[in-house]
Order: sequence, then structure tokens, then C-alpha cells
Amino acid sequence: MRALGLLAATIACAGPLMAAEVSTFTLPNGMQAVVIEDHRAPVVVNMVWYRIGAADEAPGQSGVAHFLEHLMFQGTKNLAPGEFSATVEATGGSDNAFTSYDYTAYFQRVAAGELDLMMQMEADRMVGLKLTEEDVATERDVIIQERAQRTDSEPSALLGEQMDAALFMNHPFGRPVIGWKHEMESLTRETAVDFYKANYAPNNAILVVAGDVTPDEVKALAEKHFGALPASAVIAARLRPSEPPQLAARRLAMVDERVSEPYVTRSYLAAERNPGDQEQSAALVLLAELLGGSPTTSVLARALQFDAQVAVYAGAGYDGTSIDPTSLQITVVPLPGVTLKAAETALDEVLAKFLTEGVDEAEFARIKRQVRAADIYAADSTQGLAQKYGAALSVGLTVADVQEWPAILAAVTTQEVMAAARAVLVPEQSVTGWLSAQEEAR
Amino acid sequence: MRALGLLAATIACAGPLMAAEVSTFTLPNGMQAVVIEDHRAPVVVNMVWYRIGAADEAPGQSGVAHFLEHLMFQGTKNLAPGEFSATVEATGGSDNAFTSYDYTAYFQRVAAGELDLMMQMEADRMVGLKLTEEDVATERDVIIQERAQRTDSEPSALLGEQMDAALFMNHPFGRPVIGWKHEMESLTRETAVDFYKANYAPNNAILVVAGDVTPDEVKALAEKHFGALPASAVIAARLRPSEPPQLAARRLAMVDERVSEPYVTRSYLAAERNPGDQEQSAALVLLAELLGGSPTTSVLARALQFDAQVAVYAGAGYDGTSIDPTSLQITVVPLPGVTLKAAETALDEVLAKFLTEGVDEAEFARIKRQVRAADIYAADSTQGLAQKYGAALSVGLTVADVQEWPAILAAVTTQEVMAAARAVLVPEQSVTGWLSAQEEAR
Repeated sequence: MRALGLLAATIACAGPLMAAEVSTFTLPNGMQAVVIEDHRAPVVVNMVWYRIGAADEAPGQSGVAHFLEHLMFQGTKNLAPGEFSATVEATGGSDNAFTSYDYTAYFQRVAAGELDLMMQMEADRMVGLKLTEEDVATERDVIIQERAQRTDSEPSALLGEQMDAALFMNHPFGRPVIGWKHEMESLTRETAVDFYKANYAPNNAILVVAGDVTPDEVKALAEKHFGALPASAVIAARLRPSEPPQLAARRLAMVDERVSEPYVTRSYLAAERNPGDQEQSAALVLLAELLGGSPTTSVLARALQFDAQVAVYAGAGYDGTSIDPTSLQITVVPLPGVTLKAAETALDEVLAKFLTEGVDEAEFARIKRQVRAADIYAADSTQGLAQKYGAALSVGLTVADVQEWPAILAAVTTQEVMAAARAVLVPEQSVTGWLSAQEEAR
Repeated sequence: MRALGLLAATIACAGPLMAAEVSTFTLPNGMQAVVIEDHRAPVVVNMVWYRIGAADEAPGQSGVAHFLEHLMFQGTKNLAPGEFSATVEATGGSDNAFTSYDYTAYFQRVAAGELDLMMQMEADRMVGLKLTEEDVATERDVIIQERAQRTDSEPSALLGEQMDAALFMNHPFGRPVIGWKHEMESLTRETAVDFYKANYAPNNAILVVAGDVTPDEVKALAEKHFGALPASAVIAARLRPSEPPQLAARRLAMVDERVSEPYVTRSYLAAERNPGDQEQSAALVLLAELLGGSPTTSVLARALQFDAQVAVYAGAGYDGTSIDPTSLQITVVPLPGVTLKAAETALDEVLAKFLTEGVDEAEFARIKRQVRAADIYAADSTQGLAQKYGAALSVGLTVADVQEWPAILAAVTTQEVMAAARAVLVPEQSVTGWLSAQEEAR
């Protein structure tokens, strides 16, 4: 309780303070930049985010965005393959990268004095990547191995792919970010290079620098390294196919003998955050938190774990930082001896009751405090803040949207949560999946 | 019984006779041609098939292949909008066109003497189409109205779309040929013209002429009209994304108050005919015929309509003339008072029994005769023959493949049918759909 009290005290001033520490500028070539000052430690996080991800891939080339992310650690005319990371490591820093549906990002965490070198190397590989057939073949094996470890050996990951493919009837969110294995196997140097040339350019990138640095220093370095790169004329609008009316609830049951803990999971199509229009997404964040944000006190946990005693776990999740409509997921792991059918029936009863009875105001206030507190904790991490701005700007949100988000979350009413629940908990816009080691009776 | 005997007699010689009547040539610009001589009536069918269909559309542009099919009846510099069909009609003939996943075809049925004019007009619109914004806007309304009548007002058609979207996880066969309505609404003149320029050319077309004409006459006219058109350098390979492993049987239940007769339907992913490799597809033709080709004597009809008395109808269908893997569909309409669940359970029992017990040789021989007879009947129609060659060549089969097909069907053994059944009747590679006016208990 003391911890909560302390947090509440922090909340009062953290919003405005953080906002003041964030500044932004755009280079003449179109490259956006966000600077997050934090002088508590002599460290900077340097990130380059590209507005390109797996959902922008051409049909048949699934995985190429992530493949290129790997290949970006190969050489340029100035750096040998692997030299980028070796250089970061030699300074005592660390670097990595990640790919999602909507963006691909590269980052280094280094001593503040190394920012110059980091930007120099990022600018270098933004336009100067050199790929040999051999590098490409080696790295293709690496990503296929990555898929084998993360997906093919994990029944729950495989189920997730089958679920997404069923949830999205037309939109590329139905394809896995890492790629379908048979398409990964056919990725070529030419495909990767074409993807690179079409999408990697300063006017398709966002620089996010967070840490012990001033906006003026960042701007001077950005102009020095990225300012010289010409804008690309071929950056295309991110036009993606959207969903047709979804008219029938989908179900699937995956049986995999490696499963030790069977479960039921459901994904509902759910609205995303949009620039200047984040209210419904904010209501969905609170809805997911209410339903299944806590392993002990959420609506689903209380009803299914404690009241009905059918589940060992019941949770819900939602992330609206997405260019296009995404999903709200619910998962129920039944107690041993409880069938998946019984667990699903119990889940449906809880959801029906929730839609009828609505939200308790006191509980809602508690949930809001939790969401706000989680936000504050996240903001305490410089890298977390950089991540938040980078992701938001990559999906088309603005710095203002990011800064208004906590207030929008705080302003959500129980009526808005229930309206969002009625809009999203629609069977026709959902897929329900069962995962078990043996076939279970429907 | 007499009718069957007569057919058997015809069968003995029909194959070779028909084969002799079919000839083929290719123009220097790459345009293929098939001539089917039939001098029983002074009529010709003139068809131009393009190797482009709905499955070749870019994501987000569903419906553009069919839209362009409509727009091809607009004007050129030589013909006013609508003048093409008016000219055909003035000769006493008729014309039309159709679009599928793998091809788009245009045809006229006219007096033999009009072939010259027909080819002249087809060659004209192959490269000379002129589209105004106004024509495009009007015709877009027409296709949207067509969708409203054929699909949006038909629950079974809507169910079919939802089923295909669930069956195909990655392949464009998951999108409807006519297009998703919201994408049809956004089709522009530019999109249609780009699709036309990228795909309509002699080296992407097949001329099929059937009727009262000689190969030499057809060749002379084809050279005169199509021979002058240059090959296009931009015709792309038909690279389509293929399916990942399908790991979980999918199910969906669509409720639509307009439904008067509820039913259960299931689609299994099924192999297609391939050049020089048609055996498995032939086995699937016989499997579908055995299971559900006859409304009274097939395995499903006998078991579900007569033995178990749960269904008023049970049928199966399969068409392997496709570039990529397609589907084998089974439909069961339960008797009033029988639930969809009971009907589906009965279906699953029949399929399990069929997979265990196999095929009765006498019944198999009867089925083969039926398939052969249907083929002979179809071959008796000049237009049917033209259709068969056009479709086959459009999906990459050869004239030889078409001519070998009856012998391949005739050579299928019961062992091959059962192997095909085991390969295709795999729950993980299927989607099961329920259609009803009210929600039914699972």
C-alpha cells in the first residue's frame, strides 16, 4: 500500500515532466527525430526505426523484413560483415534490432560519447549495405533456425500462427512476422536487396535518441551523419488490404503431442490507436486489463480461477499500437480434469455476465491506477520511453498522441469501456483455438 | 439400361476421334491457338482466353480481373462503348465473358462467316482499350450490383467466401473472384488500366476456335488479326504464395435469418491437375463422384439419406483444373428436425467407414462409366470442348494433357482412389461450415 501511495505521488507530476524532456525535429531530407533527455547516467540509447515491417511484405515473401534486419549486420563499403556489432561491443556497449508487423528498428546502448560513432555507422548502413550471395545464404539458415527454435518447436507459437491466419481473412497480419518456413527458404539476395532499396531511406526512418544528451547535440550529429543522405523518391504509401465483413465465428483445434498444458484461446478483431483518435483503443486497454490484466484480481481470474474453479490461469491482452486493426486475446488454462469445452463454456458465461452487468466503479478506478502505474514504471526506463516513441511514430502516431495517451487513458469512463466491449466481443469477429496433446470432445 | 449400353459403344471410339479433330499452333508473338473442327452446323465459337485471373490480383485490389472483364466491353479507338456486343448481336450471334481465379475469357457464338470480324474486334480490344473515368464509374456500380445480387443477398455465397478465407491461409484462392465489396468500391480507372497493360497481350492469350472452320482458315485469320500485335515484354510469371502447413481443422458457423434450409459443408484442401502429372487429380475426381456425385446412389447419399435418414441431400464436388491446390467440398442438408451437429457426426462416421472399408469394385466400375459418360456428353457440345481446352491451357496444361485425361481417368484404380482419399480427407487441412437461421448448439 505504501508503494501505491508513493506511485500516486509520482503520477501527479510525472506526465508534464516527461513531456518537457521530449523534443523533436525533422531533417530537410524527411528523417524525423525524437530526443529524450535523461541525465541520470552517462549513457545513450540510439535507435533508428524504419516505417517498414512484415505487414508490408509482398505476398510470397513473408519473412523478408526480418531477414533484412539480420542482413543489416553484414557489411558496407566501410564496415566488414559483423564489424558494426564488434565496434559497439569494443566501446563497452550493446546493440540489437527487432522486426514487427509495422516497423523494423536498430538500436545501440552506449556511453554518451559514442553517439557520434553510432550515428555514423547507422547512416552508413542505411544506404550502403553490401550483400554477397554467401552472406545471404548463411543468414537465411540462421533465420530458419530461429523459426525452428521459436515457432516450430513451440506448439503455442504454431497455434498462434494458425489463429492469426484464421482471424485475418484479408489483412497481412494473418502472416507470421518471421515468415512461413517455405517462403523463408525461398528468400533470395535479390528479394532482400529490392526490399532494402524500396524501403530504407532517411525519409522512411525515425531517429530516437534517449539519455545523457541534449537536443542540440543530437541535432548536430543527425545533420552531420543523416543530413547528407538524399531522400528516396520510391518510398511507397503503406497501402494494405483491409478486412471484409467477418460473418462467422471461427474455431480451430490443434493437437500436438508436445503439449503439456492444454488451453483455450480466443482472438477478437480490435480497433487500433489512430492519430488524434485514441479513445476507443484506450478503452480497449482498460477492458483487457479489467478482464484479464491481473493473474489474481481480474474479472476472468476471479470468476474462472476462484469462483467456478475451472482454470489455473485466465488472462487477456491487447496492444493498440498498430497501423491497422489488431486483436484482443483471451486465454484460459483449465485445471487438470476440466475439459477445454467446459473451460470455454465457463469463459463465455463470464463474458456474457460482464456484458450484462458492466463494470464496478471502484474496481475500475483501481484498474486505472494500475495501468497508470505500469505506464510510470515503463517511463522510468529510458529505453522503454525510446521504444514507446519509436513504435508510436512508426505506426503514424505523433509525439502529441504519445503525450496525450496517459490523459486519454485517465479519462476513459466505464460507459466507454462497456461500449468498447460490446464493439469488440463479437463472436463473428473472433477465432477460438484449442491446443491439446490429444483430440478433445467438442 | 439401353442408354448405358449405347454410351459404352460410343466411348470405344470417341476418344481418338475427338483428338483427331483438335489442332493447335502458336503465332510468332507467342499467342497460342487451338482449333476444334465440328462441321455439324455452320456456326463457330470464337474464344480468347487470358492467362490472368482473380488469383493474380495485387492485395487490396480484389475484383479487378472481373472489373476489367466488364470494362473490355467499353470502347477502343475503332469501337464505341457497347459497339462490340451490338455488332455481334447484329450478325445474329451472341457474346459474353467470364472471369475465374486463373483466367479471364471472352467468346462469341456466331455464323462461321463472321469469324473474321470477331477476331478483328478481339485483336482490337486486346491492345486498344480506351476507358473514360465515367465508363469506369458506371461499370463499377454494375459489378457492385452484381455482387449484391449474387453474393450479398445469398447467405450460401457469403458462407462460401468465409469458408474459402478460412481454408486458404496464405493463397489468394481465399479471396472471392468478384472481390471484397470494400475493395471493389475503391477500384479506379488507373488500377484497371494498369492491370490491362500488365496482362493483356498476345503472348498471354490463347485463341480457341471451335466449329465449322478448318485449321488453315483459323490460322490465316489469326495471323491477319493477332499476328500483327507485338508480344508484351512485361508479362510476369504467375508467382503465387502457397500454403504453409495447415495444422488445425477450422470450423465456422454463420447465422443468417434469411436461411431457409440449414446445412453443413466442408472443404478439404485438394491437389490440382498438373502438366504430365494428372493421376492424383483424376483419383480425386472419382473420389468426389463416389462420395457424392449422384443424388441417390453415391456413398454419402445412400448412407445419410437412406440408411441413417438424417439428410435430404448429401453431395460432393471437386474440380482440379486449377493452377494451384484447390478444394474438395462435401455438403449435407439435414432432414428437418435433425441438427447440424447430428448431420455432421453422421457425415464423419460415413467418411471414417469409407476410409476403413474402401471401395466396392463393382460400384467403382459403375462410377467410372458415369464419369466417362459425362465426359462424352460434354464433348458433344462444341462450346463445351472449347471451354475444356481453353481452361486447361489457361492453367498451364497442354493439349496432350487434355487428350490424355480420359485415359488417365479410366486407368485409376480403387487403390489410387483410397490413397487420394487418405491424402485429402485430413481434418487439419479442412474447414467445416454451418449455415443456419438461428444459432445451433455445437
